Amino acid sequence: MTSVKAVMGKEEDDHLPNSNFNVDFVIHYKIPKDARAEAEAGYVQLIEVLTSVGLASEVRPGGEASLLIFVKMASEKLLREQVFRARLQDWLHGVRTAGPGADLSRVLMEEPVSEAERLRLIYMAITKPKNEGGAGITPGNGPWKHVDSVFPLHDRHFNREWIKRLSTKYLLEQDDLDEIRNKFGENVALYFAFVQSYFRFLVFPAAFGFGSWLLLGQFSFLYALASCLWSVVFFEFWKKKEVDLSVQWGVRGASKIQLPRPQFQFEHETEDVVTGEPIKVYSPFKRLKTQLLQIPFTVACVIVLGGFIVMCNSLEVFINEVYDGPFKTYLPFLPTVLLVTILPVFSTILTGFAKKLTDMENYETIDAHHAAMVQKEFVLNFITSYMPLAFTAFVYIPFGHVLTPYLDFWGRVAQGLTFGQKELSVQEFRINPSRITNQMFYFTVTAQIVNFATEAVVPYVKRKVTHKVKENGIVSKAVDPGADDAPEEAGFLRKVRRETELEAYDVTTDYREMVIQFGYLSLYSVAWPLAGCSFLVNNWVELRSDAFKIAAASRRPIPWRADSIGPWLNALGFLSWLGSLTSSAIVFLCRGDADGSKGAASNIQTWGLLLTILLAEHFYLVVQIAVRFLMDKIDSPGLQREKKERFNLKKRILEENLGQNAAFRSAAPGIEMSEKLTQSALREESERAGHVSAEDM
Amino acid sequence: MTSVKAVMGKEEDDHLPNSNFNVDFVIHYKIPKDARAEAEAGYVQLIEVLTSVGLASEVRPGGEASLLIFVKMASEKLLREQVFRARLQDWLHGVRTAGPGADLSRVLMEEPVSEAERLRLIYMAITKPKNEGGAGITPGNGPWKHVDSVFPLHDRHFNREWIKRLSTKYLLEQDDLDEIRNKFGENVALYFAFVQSYFRFLVFPAAFGFGSWLLLGQFSFLYALASCLWSVVFFEFWKKKEVDLSVQWGVRGASKIQLPRPQFQFEHETEDVVTGEPIKVYSPFKRLKTQLLQIPFTVACVIVLGGFIVMCNSLEVFINEVYDGPFKTYLPFLPTVLLVTILPVFSTILTGFAKKLTDMENYETIDAHHAAMVQKEFVLNFITSYMPLAFTAFVYIPFGHVLTPYLDFWGRVAQGLTFGQKELSVQEFRINPSRITNQMFYFTVTAQIVNFATEAVVPYVKRKVTHKVKENGIVSKAVDPGADDAPEEAGFLRKVRRETELEAYDVTTDYREMVIQFGYLSLYSVAWPLAGCSFLVNNWVELRSDAFKIAAASRRPIPWRADSIGPWLNALGFLSWLGSLTSSAIVFLCRGDADGSKGAASNIQTWGLLLTILLAEHFYLVVQIAVRFLMDKIDSPGLQREKKERFNLKKRILEENLGQNAAFRSAAPGIEMSEKLTQSALREESERAGHVSAEDM
Repeated sequence: MTSVKAVMGKEEDDHLPNSNFNVDFVIHYKIPKDARAEAEAGYVQLIEVLTSVGLASEVRPGGEASLLIFVKMASEKLLREQVFRARLQDWLHGVRTAGPGADLSRVLMEEPVSEAERLRLIYMAITKPKNEGGAGITPGNGPWKHVDSVFPLHDRHFNREWIKRLSTKYLLEQDDLDEIRNKFGENVALYFAFVQSYFRFLVFPAAFGFGSWLLLGQFSFLYALASCLWSVVFFEFWKKKEVDLSVQWGVRGASKIQLPRPQFQFEHETEDVVTGEPIKVYSPFKRLKTQLLQIPFTVACVIVLGGFIVMCNSLEVFINEVYDGPFKTYLPFLPTVLLVTILPVFSTILTGFAKKLTDMENYETIDAHHAAMVQKEFVLNFITSYMPLAFTAFVYIPFGHVLTPYLDFWGRVAQGLTFGQKELSVQEFRINPSRITNQMFYFTVTAQIVNFATEAVVPYVKRKVTHKVKENGIVSKAVDPGADDAPEEAGFLRKVRRETELEAYDVTTDYREMVIQFGYLSLYSVAWPLAGCSFLVNNWVELRSDAFKIAAASRRPIPWRADSIGPWLNALGFLSWLGSLTSSAIVFLCRGDADGSKGAASNIQTWGLLLTILLAEHFYLVVQIAVRFLMDKIDSPGLQREKKERFNLKKRILEENLGQNAAFRSAAPGIEMSEKLTQSALREESERAGHVSAEDM
Repeated sequence: MTSVKAVMGKEEDDHLPNSNFNVDFVIHYKIPKDARAEAEAGYVQLIEVLTSVGLASEVRPGGEASLLIFVKMASEKLLREQVFRARLQDWLHGVRTAGPGADLSRVLMEEPVSEAERLRLIYMAITKPKNEGGAGITPGNGPWKHVDSVFPLHDRHFNREWIKRLSTKYLLEQDDLDEIRNKFGENVALYFAFVQSYFRFLVFPAAFGFGSWLLLGQFSFLYALASCLWSVVFFEFWKKKEVDLSVQWGVRGASKIQLPRPQFQFEHETEDVVTGEPIKVYSPFKRLKTQLLQIPFTVACVIVLGGFIVMCNSLEVFINEVYDGPFKTYLPFLPTVLLVTILPVFSTILTGFAKKLTDMENYETIDAHHAAMVQKEFVLNFITSYMPLAFTAFVYIPFGHVLTPYLDFWGRVAQGLTFGQKELSVQEFRINPSRITNQMFYFTVTAQIVNFATEAVVPYVKRKVTHKVKENGIVSKAVDPGADDAPEEAGFLRKVRRETELEAYDVTTDYREMVIQFGYLSLYSVAWPLAGCSFLVNNWVELRSDAFKIAAASRRPIPWRADSIGPWLNALGFLSWLGSLTSSAIVFLCRGDADGSKGAASNIQTWGLLLTILLAEHFYLVVQIAVRFLMDKIDSPGLQREKKERFNLKKRILEENLGQNAAFRSAAPGIEMSEKLTQSALREESERAGHVSAEDM
């Protein structure tokens, strides 16, 4: 695997020490020239608060006008305290079953501390508010506006081995996922687990998609049924799988322990009815009112983005299939150029609105805020991704002939542009049945490759080039910050400076990609059944390229915990449901029209379409109920383990309370305990308590 | 309330002692003349096993050829043992939160023992298998075939007061429900809670039903929407309410502790993965195969019952609206007579099949068996209850004109019967738009009154009459079993003998009645919006008549526990969903046809119908999601209490482990604990443990 080695910088890093000098975190501190004094005062304060929470620090010069502050726990003892405290909190909030009994503290400390747990706790110590025992450093906010970033250092040796291992095996196993969990936290590991499960499941649509492409062609009724069934099974499977994984990783319920959002504005304080802790409250009705703004927002998105996409698509149809005037060779590129240049602008503006709206919704916790934002972005992505195909499948193919007159609009525009100098030459309109296939091919193959390139290759190349440029002194103005490095640190510092330049890794982007892909499969693959095959290949690469992105093209992520893919689960369920509607409608509308033989709209009976949709949706709902029923029969190993743990725990308590013998027997004789079991224990018990309200006949 | 007093037999019972002589249970033991020796041997054995499990017994002569065996716990100590053991088991299975810590046994005994709990435990002691510490008496089965019944004795004084209280107040409050729970167990109390909640909720459909009857008339679109919304809200409300109640009564999860079904046939034994207990297994795939037989069973039910109902209904239409021949005065009664006489026969045969099918499905537990049986009976009830209205709403009114020719079938039959002697005189067919109103009136008013009569009044009158007959010596052959009674026991024994003659109370019948009623409201009330008013009045009476049935017309029920209305919840959800479809379809089909002005079928466009249904169903689904979302925001007091209990429990454990101070603070400073909190505790902790793998920079 020489290429991998090359890519991971093996050659140049060989002489570097693999160790990070036991540094846990790096704080990249900017000292801008125009606010030097302020920044320096902030720096002093920073070192002070770090020290006050037991973090040792060390400073080195960073890149241009910045400092690198290396942070680590001052002592193992302090770390152990943090671990114990965090685990105790987990147990209090029900994330851990282990615990009660006289040996609570022993039990909590027994489990070894993974790298992810350690890094997460140190990060928490750095960022948590002061009144909760942290240093209260919020990068980029308030007094810490010069703190550019806080991130852990990559373990280059591990990364190299990891990428190598991933690229030489077909499937990730549980060990691989556990390894990712221990290094990058459950949040990232859950993403890999999801992609892995999705990849395995893709074998089915790839197989029956290929078969149906060979035997049944496009718009096959059978393929639509199989695809609907598959998406339901996959969705239900994943719901179980994610619970399983979270139990296995001991994070089930971790999403309940939520990080407060620093920007949250509260109306009044009250007491938590459960824990008695003071909590900050913002009226849910006020929030609901703000949330209702999502309706006009969604309408606006549909009108702006959807309208623009429909416009470009109809223009494209006009140019390709009606227009016959001048520039016929170049004009077909016009709609694409419009889409590529203007659509992102619209998207960016609308995303800005979404961000503002989410801020106004004023969520208490980071998770809720994040979920709300994801939801809105999903609406945007949904429109930009699926609208072009919707236009082709639901308007162009079935109703193309009926809608031809409307294309005259573009003719008149063209005439207007040419100042009506000559009669516009047109050709007779004919529906191009391969349009949807071409589009599907574009979205499922071309776009995926382009995406892969922009995501993994471009940043890497860009980085390499800038480095080469810097090293070769082409940009020579900047002082080399590494000039005064001690020789034994030089390699390490060079590495750290490079990491500060990288982007932060955001798993959301990767989830979005997968979910949108799932949507193509569920919504439109009936128009091009080979989509499954394309995605199967793509996702093998995707998973490795994501790993590569994490290891080499991003800063090491903060190893957050997660017990679910969160808002994406709803998106998956929605797409799976919608798929049952669109697939059936596409089959009904396009079948027989694809070869252009049938005359389209006139033949289409509305009641037939409605009946098809009605039946398809009920097929979906019935399959869902059946699959859930069957899945419930299969006991999940994770939940089983949890139940067993709880049961054994209680048995142990019973032992402690009533003596070994009683507890041992209590578990044995069926649901009810044997006569003898508690009698001895009870005898003492009742003798101690004496008779209560004895009443004789 | 003299009538109530009369009904409760105040006059004749005034001279009876209210006490039951501390008797807990009565075993009614038959000694048939033809198997006297066998029965007597069985009796000796019965007394032996009762004694062996610590139950004291006393025998008196029963009615004709039978014995009354009075059973009570031999000592309070034994009862306390049973209570402790049962509560320990509850705790082990997670039904109780209270428990762990050094004072497990104290905590378990603290809660006072309610009458229901005591009776349930004694009943369990009588009926549980011997290897689980019970006497293993299974009434009517195997060696205990002469055991006619095992039941607790009514508390007449309480019953009298209870009925009096109920009939003088409009609404049951929580105290009333708690009282029912303490006397008759959670199973019965949950039924009353359900009827009570349903009754309160009925105010809405009664109000907007009345309003819509006044202002909008039949088949109102608005009423259909309101009704759909209402049924969703009620369903979701009840799901929360029942969880709440079960937490409040400490039975949440009690349905998980299941009673094994004695008839269950197992294939092999294995070990429970959670508890390590041996469990008996029957292949779920084999069961699934048997369960698939439900499909042909349902089809058969639809064909037999549905066909017969449609036949009778069309015959009725023919006789009333087409036929004009001889016997015109008497013939209209023919279909009703047919329905009343033949339908119950079919129902009984099919119920027999359902019973056999359920037995074949071979369930492990009594609950699962019961739920499966309820499900099948629901299918039968569904068809017999809703089919006549479905015929009128979906066939007669919209398509009556189209279907007239088919009514000729009856004409030909009639001619055949009269041997074609003369031409059959017919009148012109006209759709009778009030048919559905009449039917709805019948099902929602007449049938409810008839039902009330057969359920509460008839058994009471019957019993009174037989008693009078017996007392007046009209049936004088039987020897008076009370002739030799000791004078101080005479009254008591007369009371007990009367109770042995009563039916056992089955809450299933009452649930069925309510659920079927809910179905009328959800499915068809759009055809007669006053249904809600009728049901509101009916249910006020129903609840009291059910109480009366329990108190005076049935044996006292075994106070079983329950944490849900179980299979009826699914039935409610199904009816609520189906209601959205039928209501919208009825509005679309019958609106404007009701007055006979429009020409029916020809005007009806299939696509319009389908679109209406599609929209209505999605309205239902969206409302469901919205209501669930909103209901989730409202924290249920029961769940909150449970959470609080768990949290406090853990805090107590923490106290015991780390000292009062630490635990107190642990709960205070937000989600995370204060710096100081665990430091002191931890210091000791880590000093004890020493440094682990300390690694310095």
